[in-house]
Amino acid sequence: MTVFLVGAGPGDADLITVRGARLLGVADVIVHDRLVERSVLELARRDAELIDVGKEPGRFTSQSVINDLLVSLGRDYEIVVRLKGGDPFVFGRGGEEMIALRDAGVSCEVVPGITSAFSGPLAAGIPVTHRGLSRGVTVVTGHVASDDDGYFRRLANPDLSLVVLMGIAARSSIAEQLIEGGLSRETPVAVIESAWTQRQSVTRSVLRNLGSLDVASPAIIVIGPCAALSLRDMLNQASAMV
Amino acid sequence: MTVFLVGAGPGDADLITVRGARLLGVADVIVHDRLVERSVLELARRDAELIDVGKEPGRFTSQSVINDLLVSLGRDYEIVVRLKGGDPFVFGRGGEEMIALRDAGVSCEVVPGITSAFSGPLAAGIPVTHRGLSRGVTVVTGHVASDDDGYFRRLANPDLSLVVLMGIAARSSIAEQLIEGGLSRETPVAVIESAWTQRQSVTRSVLRNLGSLDVASPAIIVIGPCAALSLRDMLNQASAMV
Repeated sequence: MTVFLVGAGPGDADLITVRGARLLGVADVIVHDRLVERSVLELARRDAELIDVGKEPGRFTSQSVINDLLVSLGRDYEIVVRLKGGDPFVFGRGGEEMIALRDAGVSCEVVPGITSAFSGPLAAGIPVTHRGLSRGVTVVTGHVASDDDGYFRRLANPDLSLVVLMGIAARSSIAEQLIEGGLSRETPVAVIESAWTQRQSVTRSVLRNLGSLDVASPAIIVIGPCAALSLRDMLNQASAMV
Repeated sequence: MTVFLVGAGPGDADLITVRGARLLGVADVIVHDRLVERSVLELARRDAELIDVGKEPGRFTSQSVINDLLVSLGRDYEIVVRLKGGDPFVFGRGGEEMIALRDAGVSCEVVPGITSAFSGPLAAGIPVTHRGLSRGVTVVTGHVASDDDGYFRRLANPDLSLVVLMGIAARSSIAEQLIEGGLSRETPVAVIESAWTQRQSVTRSVLRNLGSLDVASPAIIVIGPCAALSLRDMLNQASAMV
């Protein structure tokens, strides 16, 4: 009788919250996105029902269908988990789902997750803030590049790190606009593909070359001096031991 | 022989990651900040040594002393956890500590946490992104307001939510600069004090009144149309049951 909007975090099952893991272990039904890793879904009860509403080409579940599904499940089952990659409130459309549930009189609770906007860079050893290099960080999606030409020009700020989610398709236009807006062509960039998975790959370059990098979705783009840092080089994966 | 930089998340012991909780349970020594809640520290082994390097007026541990302490502990103990509120790489100075450890040849691993920049607003039912209201989010600290007059003027962007950490002291100047930069005086603002604790309190207003609100640190300021949302009104705290 309650729908929990739960952030799955970056992908690794160890990086969901304690509360999120506990909810997955008791949920009757789990409604999840395509980008949620299998290892996270393995935290579910054996007899839990799993529903994949992943959005991918040719297999599209519209937001309104997802909203209706959550309302109907919320009426029928004791504990429903709506599991989203990253955090439900950071480009997760969790707010829209909460409003739909509220309007239908279904009880709803939200459990935050680690946003891929910050954990993606971290996976590559990039702190999004670092004294002397960045005084803050802006997070946007690449979709705004096409909606509104010139949008990224207004995001050119050499003092901030810029993290772009879902920006691979628009990366040429993004780079061009940021340079027009005043960012140096030599500003460091990093592209992290499939962060926190076995397939993770990090490509480093500079802004003028962003458009021609051989990279594919899902990926996170980091632009700014912090993107040149690589503080994970030295890691010894000791955490695997504990 | 390894120092783990662990993000404690927003404060609630249930909202640390599974990996973070596990590391706290095996650590020999835990070096923590003032803002880490007692409930999180209770995850520690009974015989673990806890060291508070909290920064507060009159009891100040400088970053270089903390760095030296971590290096020395990392040489003497098997598992050292450096526990930080929120995320180590989002205004956590985790990058500086990693560099100090690397330079000293001490092995180091980082475990992300949920940043208070996003979970603080969430605690008040505010999604930092929401379709039709915000196309992204910028996170900064209030310190930049005094370092560089006019800095916040350049952050005025009606399309983005703006989250200011440690901004209470500078809130008049921040509001003034954002209005000079072009933000409407009627832009919604919310101030979340002591998010995720029993003492949590949320104050909502508009930008022109930010300077005169009766609020105190620690607090998170959210500025933008999303700050008017309150999606947690309907919550029934069902999560306490599981």
